[in-house]
Amino acid sequence: MSGEVEARLRAAGIELPDAPAPAANYVPYVISGNQVFVSGQVPWAGGERGHIGRLGEDLSVEQGQAAAKVVALNIIAQVKAACGGDLDRVARCVKLGGFVNCTPDFKEHPQVINGASDLMVEVFGDAGRHARFAVGAAALPFNVAVEIDAVFELN
Amino acid sequence: MSGEVEARLRAAGIELPDAPAPAANYVPYVISGNQVFVSGQVPWAGGERGHIGRLGEDLSVEQGQAAAKVVALNIIAQVKAACGGDLDRVARCVKLGGFVNCTPDFKEHPQVINGASDLMVEVFGDAGRHARFAVGAAALPFNVAVEIDAVFELN
Amino acid sequence: MSGEVEARLRAAGIELPDAPAPAANYVPYVISGNQVFVSGQVPWAGGERGHIGRLGEDLSVEQGQAAAKVVALNIIAQVKAACGGDLDRVARCVKLGGFVNCTPDFKEHPQVINGASDLMVEVFGDAGRHARFAVGAAALPFNVAVEIDAVFELN
Repeated sequence: MSGEVEARLRAAGIELPDAPAPAANYVPYVISGNQVFVSGQVPWAGGERGHIGRLGEDLSVEQGQAAAKVVALNIIAQVKAACGGDLDRVARCVKLGGFVNCTPDFKEHPQVINGASDLMVEVFGDAGRHARFAVGAAALPFNVAVEIDAVFELN
Repeated sequence: MSGEVEARLRAAGIELPDAPAPAANYVPYVISGNQVFVSGQVPWAGGERGHIGRLGEDLSVEQGQAAAKVVALNIIAQVKAACGGDLDRVARCVKLGGFVNCTPDFKEHPQVINGASDLMVEVFGDAGRHARFAVGAAALPFNVAVEIDAVFELN
Repeated sequence: MSGEVEARLRAAGIELPDAPAPAANYVPYVISGNQVFVSGQVPWAGGERGHIGRLGEDLSVEQGQAAAKVVALNIIAQVKAACGGDLDRVARCVKLGGFVNCTPDFKEHPQVINGASDLMVEVFGDAGRHARFAVGAAALPFNVAVEIDAVFELN
């Protein structure tokens, strides 16, 4: 079964970004027991700094979903680093904490964060089905559209 | 001691709602080791879609507390499902993460989230005493007043 | 090695405040397995109720960092209580959840929360290096500048 998740990534045409370095004095993930706590990730990958702006004002729900998908790719890249490169060690995506940069009248946070949730299930199958919250943030670092942190369980 | 928590629910005249289905592609709870991570719940129960609006504008603190109580009932309903129906397996309500939909000048987040905290202690006794945060959200899904996620520990 | 963290606190001239009592019906921390979940702390210590206001409007980034440092001191004070007074039992600062009270155009959340992150590394060394998120809150209790919750792992 080795490389099962990597095979699924290839089949879906998904290339993981390099695991991003944190923007400040903290680390991208911490392993505690068999849980991995992943720092809040932003939707930047491969040096490209897009997905800027607020939902309900600058960006459509579809654009928000695209941002959430890039965030999820970064989360998976961090988990891969935490696993020593072997994503088959992921027992479960336990939780996503989803923050959407939005105006006060925005209501479609679940749809936006689905961009990340759908990718977890696509990549990890049933092990990708997670608990989560999806809420509105008054503002986010660098004015990015979405920030998500995560807890995973490893074998 | 079987049925102790259910007896307390009956004594308090509290009827648990059906565990709500998630609004998107995720699951209502995930069990990791002996911890249950409950997805962010909203204040809707039994098909009724109330508790809409923002604190500091549309809703009073008392209305916010009533919303938080319904959210807490939904959290307990999810935990009951995670326990296979036996709430006596709850060792501890470990943490509540409380988001209040509010205006920028609102300051009474603790009082609002008390509507949930008080219920946890009423239902679980000392095992219901939890860590928590209570913060303001720029907006929440469907414009609900309160969203809360939770971590429980099971025996 | 007994008292190693306390020695580091003394060397840095840091005096821990009394562990603050919660503002409502919950507890300052819960121990679950070998993890400690610390309730969201605010930047009040020793009876002084400062660090009020919003980033991007009332307070500079430097003032926000100072608030985050006081919050971190309160978190460490709670962890010390959870350890029965022996901070050398801290195996790891696992995660900080950082909420910054800010205007919609504020973008420097990481710099603000660094006030807490830097202190964790100063006090705990490598064990203080943590996962975290840093996001904007629409409002915070009592209009404080920063609220942070935490997960620690104990030996």
